[in-house]
Amino acid sequence: MTELPERALQLIVSYDGTNYAGWQIQNDQRTIQGALERTLLKITGEKIRVTGSGRTDSGVHAIGQVVSFRMQSQLSPDVMRRALNAELPPDIVVQSARNAIPEFNAIDCAIKKRYRYLLQEGRIDDVFSRQYAWFVKKELNFAAMQAAAQHLIGEHDFASFESVGSERMTTVRHVFDVQVLRSERHEFDKVAIEVEANGFLYNMVRIIVGTLVDVGKGRRPPEWVAEVLAAKKRTAGGMTAPAHGLYLLRVDYPETCWLD
Amino acid sequence: MTELPERALQLIVSYDGTNYAGWQIQNDQRTIQGALERTLLKITGEKIRVTGSGRTDSGVHAIGQVVSFRMQSQLSPDVMRRALNAELPPDIVVQSARNAIPEFNAIDCAIKKRYRYLLQEGRIDDVFSRQYAWFVKKELNFAAMQAAAQHLIGEHDFASFESVGSERMTTVRHVFDVQVLRSERHEFDKVAIEVEANGFLYNMVRIIVGTLVDVGKGRRPPEWVAEVLAAKKRTAGGMTAPAHGLYLLRVDYPETCWLD
Repeated sequence: MTELPERALQLIVSYDGTNYAGWQIQNDQRTIQGALERTLLKITGEKIRVTGSGRTDSGVHAIGQVVSFRMQSQLSPDVMRRALNAELPPDIVVQSARNAIPEFNAIDCAIKKRYRYLLQEGRIDDVFSRQYAWFVKKELNFAAMQAAAQHLIGEHDFASFESVGSERMTTVRHVFDVQVLRSERHEFDKVAIEVEANGFLYNMVRIIVGTLVDVGKGRRPPEWVAEVLAAKKRTAGGMTAPAHGLYLLRVDYPETCWLD
Repeated sequence: MTELPERALQLIVSYDGTNYAGWQIQNDQRTIQGALERTLLKITGEKIRVTGSGRTDSGVHAIGQVVSFRMQSQLSPDVMRRALNAELPPDIVVQSARNAIPEFNAIDCAIKKRYRYLLQEGRIDDVFSRQYAWFVKKELNFAAMQAAAQHLIGEHDFASFESVGSERMTTVRHVFDVQVLRSERHEFDKVAIEVEANGFLYNMVRIIVGTLVDVGKGRRPPEWVAEVLAAKKRTAGGMTAPAHGLYLLRVDYPETCWLD
């Protein structure tokens, strides 16, 4: 009888989600989890199951997805990082690897997460962002979007910001921060919406973005967001913004999770 | 006998060069010129030959390529722009269209051009920039690159900064401006090198970048660039930086070229 591996690793992983059917393994589809597990098998000879802090959907990107797994191999974190980057497809990059406590799990141990959503506003699309930002063919009222975003901060029932059909114990989440920021890429103006919370419901960021864009377009006043929250039903809010503008930016854990 | 069309248009065009064999029409290859001419035929029914201000190589991008052509059609510039954008593939976008004087030609009338080159420096590659920036696996000495760039400003014989085999009347060009700038995209630091001149030799920007990167890596001092210029032969300078970091940023023309 072999002993269960006691060694756990944490990876911070970036990926361009364009050519993947999302994070989670599915038969006959290219997935991020599938690519990582296949590469780990190749490097270590071990059949390793990895856990991602969030199961990003098809087309969603990650700047700092966190991945946990256990293994027998005694290779150092930096050797693992370099071996993974040598073998992974070029649209998945391991930013860092570190030793974690044996019970470390990327989902259960997470304290908070931060997502970014990129919008491309204006008359003309940016060819370099067609898979990396949502093109909104209108100038957005930036101040109105910032005012609207304030209503989301704090502990609220976000039932209106969850796709129907999801099953959760509770739809209450604590949003610590929402920022509406100007950003620039290749001469084309962008608006970045960043949301940080202790947890996210299914499609929560994309529905927040769809709702804030209705405010930015002048269809609704900033105060409408408070009404949407109070309604506690999905139909109250704006559309679900498309997947390709969304980035998992960062996941935070207690410092006690790390061994180095 | 049909009269030659007297009406000329100017387009400003952006494209992601990743999936093209460059600007110029070649048999059985996807090219930017080919896509534009095919789309113009579809819209106007006319067999139109377009002229680009520069024949960008395979993988090179454009933010503001300028295109000129003549046509019979009396469609307004804005209708042309919208019709082109509706029919062109999503990685080519017409930013603007305007009426030009009949003799307008995007190559001959150009006063100056500006290129940008994007470098991704550091230990870790940015997955979102693998086709949009040159990944230099080392921290670059920014101040040294800026100092080195100053040697290029002014009227010089740029023979050392031209790929061998090119045939030109003269290799003297006037460089008006070289900037080494910090830029940021998706949390990953970038260095942008911009060069503006009255004309460019074949691969001039890419050889300038390869040479400045040698300085940035500390292999050569900033003054070396003056030696490279003085040598007047290609082998004196650095490598030719890869195509996928290069962007045709802007082309300037006399105001007298425009009818509106």
